[in-house]
Amino acid sequence: MKKQGFQPDWRNTAPEASSFRSIFKWGASATFKHPNERLYALLKETFSLSDRDFQTRQNQGDEAVVLNPAVPMRLSVEQVRLFEDIVGENNVESGDYARVKFSSGKTMEEIHQLRSSAVGRICDLVVHPRNKADICQIVACANRQKIPLYVYGGGTSVTLAPKPVKGGITLVMATHMNRVVEFNETNQTITVESGMMGPVLEDFLNHAPTLYHARHAYTCGHFPQSFEFSTVGGWIVTKGSGQMSSYYGDACDMVISQEYVAPSGCLKTLDYPSTATGPMVNDMLKGSEGAFGVLVSVTLKIFRYQPENRRRFSYLFPSFTDGISACREISQSQFGMPSVLRISDAEETWVGLKQHGLESRVLERFLAYRGYLPGKRSLMIGHTEGERGFSKNVRKMIGKICKRYGALPLSGYPVRKWEKSKFADPYLREDLNDFGIWIDTLETGLTWAKLLEVHEQVRAYIKARPQTLCMTHCSHFYPQGANLYFIFLSRFATLEEYKTFQMGIVERIVKSGGSLSHHHGVGKMLAPLMEKHLGKEQMDVLRALKAHFDPQNIMNPGGTLGLD
Amino acid sequence: MKKQGFQPDWRNTAPEASSFRSIFKWGASATFKHPNERLYALLKETFSLSDRDFQTRQNQGDEAVVLNPAVPMRLSVEQVRLFEDIVGENNVESGDYARVKFSSGKTMEEIHQLRSSAVGRICDLVVHPRNKADICQIVACANRQKIPLYVYGGGTSVTLAPKPVKGGITLVMATHMNRVVEFNETNQTITVESGMMGPVLEDFLNHAPTLYHARHAYTCGHFPQSFEFSTVGGWIVTKGSGQMSSYYGDACDMVISQEYVAPSGCLKTLDYPSTATGPMVNDMLKGSEGAFGVLVSVTLKIFRYQPENRRRFSYLFPSFTDGISACREISQSQFGMPSVLRISDAEETWVGLKQHGLESRVLERFLAYRGYLPGKRSLMIGHTEGERGFSKNVRKMIGKICKRYGALPLSGYPVRKWEKSKFADPYLREDLNDFGIWIDTLETGLTWAKLLEVHEQVRAYIKARPQTLCMTHCSHFYPQGANLYFIFLSRFATLEEYKTFQMGIVERIVKSGGSLSHHHGVGKMLAPLMEKHLGKEQMDVLRALKAHFDPQNIMNPGGTLGLD
Repeated sequence: MKKQGFQPDWRNTAPEASSFRSIFKWGASATFKHPNERLYALLKETFSLSDRDFQTRQNQGDEAVVLNPAVPMRLSVEQVRLFEDIVGENNVESGDYARVKFSSGKTMEEIHQLRSSAVGRICDLVVHPRNKADICQIVACANRQKIPLYVYGGGTSVTLAPKPVKGGITLVMATHMNRVVEFNETNQTITVESGMMGPVLEDFLNHAPTLYHARHAYTCGHFPQSFEFSTVGGWIVTKGSGQMSSYYGDACDMVISQEYVAPSGCLKTLDYPSTATGPMVNDMLKGSEGAFGVLVSVTLKIFRYQPENRRRFSYLFPSFTDGISACREISQSQFGMPSVLRISDAEETWVGLKQHGLESRVLERFLAYRGYLPGKRSLMIGHTEGERGFSKNVRKMIGKICKRYGALPLSGYPVRKWEKSKFADPYLREDLNDFGIWIDTLETGLTWAKLLEVHEQVRAYIKARPQTLCMTHCSHFYPQGANLYFIFLSRFATLEEYKTFQMGIVERIVKSGGSLSHHHGVGKMLAPLMEKHLGKEQMDVLRALKAHFDPQNIMNPGGTLGLD
Repeated sequence: MKKQGFQPDWRNTAPEASSFRSIFKWGASATFKHPNERLYALLKETFSLSDRDFQTRQNQGDEAVVLNPAVPMRLSVEQVRLFEDIVGENNVESGDYARVKFSSGKTMEEIHQLRSSAVGRICDLVVHPRNKADICQIVACANRQKIPLYVYGGGTSVTLAPKPVKGGITLVMATHMNRVVEFNETNQTITVESGMMGPVLEDFLNHAPTLYHARHAYTCGHFPQSFEFSTVGGWIVTKGSGQMSSYYGDACDMVISQEYVAPSGCLKTLDYPSTATGPMVNDMLKGSEGAFGVLVSVTLKIFRYQPENRRRFSYLFPSFTDGISACREISQSQFGMPSVLRISDAEETWVGLKQHGLESRVLERFLAYRGYLPGKRSLMIGHTEGERGFSKNVRKMIGKICKRYGALPLSGYPVRKWEKSKFADPYLREDLNDFGIWIDTLETGLTWAKLLEVHEQVRAYIKARPQTLCMTHCSHFYPQGANLYFIFLSRFATLEEYKTFQMGIVERIVKSGGSLSHHHGVGKMLAPLMEKHLGKEQMDVLRALKAHFDPQNIMNPGGTLGLD
């Protein structure tokens, strides 16, 4: 590919501290990842844009957050004082910026609004609890006063989960509630407060030999794309799943016990790895998305950190169908699972190869000759982990299976490339949005039997819209199924047009046999579809638990999980 | 060991079809496993008995079941007719024998009573539902009429779980509800009715290539000691765990989805292997022990059946402590788990070696010389499964670890011996009971950090009783802990004396840090300890679910799980 002369002036300056942009910008304020020249060319081609369309950035949200007209604070001075008395004045904020910041997640809807200095529903007061005792008092006080309580972890939700649609108080967990409570090498567990951020946890575990005189270094095993900016509590209450879930399990699989503060009282589940003492309250709390109470601390399984045992692989399959067949065989063959396994569909493979400059006429002719045709071929990448012999055997077996399904082995280059950028891709969003291109993702959990049909039907829906890119992959595997992750890029005239399209995708996912969400959760965005998806009987069970934990509906009210 | 002249006249005749013995006798009516001469010698020695004490069998329970005085039927003729109208007259029983049989489990308490033709609380009517529609009607009718409903699976409960303490109706699931609903090789699942017995399920799966034109043969992976005589539904509602759980998971881990009929309505959970749509109702139902509703059918994960990959091992450790350390290292080293892993404490090792005639002076001198002292040494047996290379690597790593912890490798003989008798040991009970020796088991789930202390404290309690054998092993392993399984033999003058001793053990287990049960469940026997164990807050959550599913408390009422 020839070098392009013109490149857009992708933004390289951190947002002002008090600006709207500082709220919606992904990740670290001074970190950027821009589309490379090849991706830029692809964007122009796809959306019929010219260099001219990339000359001026739009709606950058650089305005300072000032609520105009002011969004009135609905708590009385006396009520505010009640909470100041609990956590201290320093830990209570009522300024415009804090109220907007801690009321915002990372949905396209919210970003779009913030870019125009528009603000949806926000909380009245921001409170930073210091410890469990604070939270007990806050929950009790809010319950007495019937004040809504929202919990803010890392703010990376893409489902409007923490949106304080009824106002009231937002609890910010990461400020103080980010400590290690207990590291227990004998049990191979760590107990942490729920506001701990991913990298802090991982750093503790990686350095356990120095910090705790541990015999081994450990890893948490949970690496969602939001890893750097999300909290342990957020992972669990939304039922998250990391990029290495196929080996380490989903977030909920790692939870040995939890400590919760609910309006109904405080509880701590027991830390037995297995016990036959009736239905497990520990399980009932997972995925409660702040609607039952506040997750205070959690005891997690941990894993040995042995990156030296990692074995990388990548393969090109004749088709997505072949790749999926290989993934199913890998997941069901009982040699253990690779930590990372990703299979891209034809369009994602096409974009990926293009973006990374891996296409050339010679290569193309070779691949076509071998039967790996553009528009059909499908890229798999991954790596293994665990004990050395285990990891080696998994790698070996994957090679055997891929060969059986007609795959061409590639070098470790694609997976190393992916590893380097695995947390960085969300940074692309601001660049695209700056020039009016929308990018978003939706995802679903499936059984193997339904996977290809859902892929086909959802793609058909998305691609029916002109000038729309749709890249899809599977990245979380189970013996019984996998997920599908759809990334779509397009241009929309209005937010309403976008939302209609987005909900159309979700409806198509569910109608064709996928679950409402594999790991993003439900929040308030997908809540209206819950009852139809789960059925009234299951929703009634969730409502019964809600009524028990939170009889006055102060916890994350306004639609979460479809409970109210 | 010298051959003994006298051997007791162990009973070799099947009980009469209508006798009390036919109810309490373990397993198949004409199958027996008697203590061998070495075990017999050990029993005499332990309990200071002589051949004379083994001349006459006591309380064999050969009397025909006739309720005298009659236990009145508390249902009216009209009520009985309601249920006859649902399932047909042929599927309703009200005779003494059926009422007693389907009201009895396998606790020592029940067996002791039945041996004297004594009967505790029994149901009024036995109903054999034919299908889900029957169950929907039965539950609705019982709910309208406020008639208690109990569910009987295989009848192997050792916790008084199905005991119909409030009378009413007992549903017998195994009679008709034992069909395969769907075999799905793509998803690697099987859906079966809850009354299916273990061997029927395993047989279907092993023969999947013939029966379903499947590409592979499969196994259910769940092999509790009760396997041959328990139902799939029973495994799940009591949170059972099989002898291969370390590799295949506990019963609940295998449950993809369930269909339930509760007084609140019918529900079927969705069959996604993973989904982030709030707390999982599928999980809330696991372990409900019949107190929420009737489990009608279940979709289970299945596994490839490849016994040819099994690798066997056995080791002798200098001490139980060393063996436990090795087991922990095995469970945490991330090379995958063996399917069977069992480590016996010193007393169980001693009894085992004695019973199997593996002691000799020469061997003894050799072992003592090598540091494997009697009264300290500890036997580990096990085998691996899974894909060939995986299984080989697990076997290899276990060898390495055991060596590191000072173990002496033995041949495959002990594990083959165990495999042969793994379902047969319960047959010993009738022989012991026939001569007044009580044998029972209690078990607990633990974290590694607590394991040795609980072992020591519980043993101290049990061994404080004179003339009491106590054999203990761990047989279910997790990275975070394991179980302890206590088998105790002693003689008691009265049932009350026995029960006091038994509950003393349970209390010591919980007080020293173990869970109330690892895989036997709670039933009505351990229910009084639930609230203290879990705390009021967790019990209130279970009660809230109970109130939702069964507002009139007709499902397994009378103490199950401590709910009423």
